[in-house]
Amino acid sequence: MARKSFPLSKVYGLLEPGPVILLTTASSGRPNIMTMSWHTMIEFEPPLVGFVISNRNYSFGLLKATKECVINIPAVEIAEKVVGCGNTSGANVDKFERFGLTPKPAARIGAPLIEECFANLECRVADTSMVSKYCLFVVEVIKAWIDPKVKNPRTIHHLGSGNFMVAGEKIKLKSKMK
Amino acid sequence: MARKSFPLSKVYGLLEPGPVILLTTASSGRPNIMTMSWHTMIEFEPPLVGFVISNRNYSFGLLKATKECVINIPAVEIAEKVVGCGNTSGANVDKFERFGLTPKPAARIGAPLIEECFANLECRVADTSMVSKYCLFVVEVIKAWIDPKVKNPRTIHHLGSGNFMVAGEKIKLKSKMK
Repeated sequence: MARKSFPLSKVYGLLEPGPVILLTTASSGRPNIMTMSWHTMIEFEPPLVGFVISNRNYSFGLLKATKECVINIPAVEIAEKVVGCGNTSGANVDKFERFGLTPKPAARIGAPLIEECFANLECRVADTSMVSKYCLFVVEVIKAWIDPKVKNPRTIHHLGSGNFMVAGEKIKLKSKMK
Repeated sequence: MARKSFPLSKVYGLLEPGPVILLTTASSGRPNIMTMSWHTMIEFEPPLVGFVISNRNYSFGLLKATKECVINIPAVEIAEKVVGCGNTSGANVDKFERFGLTPKPAARIGAPLIEECFANLECRVADTSMVSKYCLFVVEVIKAWIDPKVKNPRTIHHLGSGNFMVAGEKIKLKSKMK
């Protein structure tokens, strides 16, 4: 895996379109993966991201304990693995092994990158004050990576009940928006 | 406009894919529109949505004061109007007039629906405790509408700097996920 460092100032453009993501966490060297769509950018730079993890998910406890995670962004080629990760629990399944995904060491945290994803965002939990009420974590992206071989990743976007929209054509409009 | 009532239990499927939305607010009968991508579902039912509005935006003050808004979801056909709304301020522009959009009365709140959008979610602010720190509002969707004539809306998803991804093909995978 020849990952390339990606500027933190451009991270919002990866998450703002709303792709399904794979969140990795790790405890005592045993990593886990969860599938998630409920996330939003909160600040451009340093990039802050808010996301919701149900407290019934195995990853909830891992994230609360370690305060570290990686947001990995998959493309459509591994959609079946993404759904598989969403339909199993890390409490009783090693999802890397079950779904043939490859954990790679992160640069700054203990949770692993997923090699099969085209982007990986190393995060530290920045604020847990909304966790008890909404299961909403605020994390800061402290290091970002992309796979430079992937030129036009077709992300997947969950419509509910296993229905996904796959990223289609791109259009450019004249805009002052960041 | 023959809007059809849409079940609150299915609202998550409209927002979870991450489309650009148009948020409408109103004060003293004068409505405004802002373009936004930083939103996430927080709860299925009643549907709670979290979104970030910069306190430099005109809509920030309107929403804080009235505690009501509509989340309108546009499709690609009006992408230029969406960008126009994102590049102007309600402080000095009547965006409905400028961009040829049509305000329609909501059922339960004062802010208007946008007729040219295929879905409209009437919302009340549910929690402002994260506004001072993150400009993050939590709203509850209290009434949802769709345009039954629009069968396959192609939403737009912001990649940054006026670049958008248009919703592409749909795929269905066997899943236990909601």
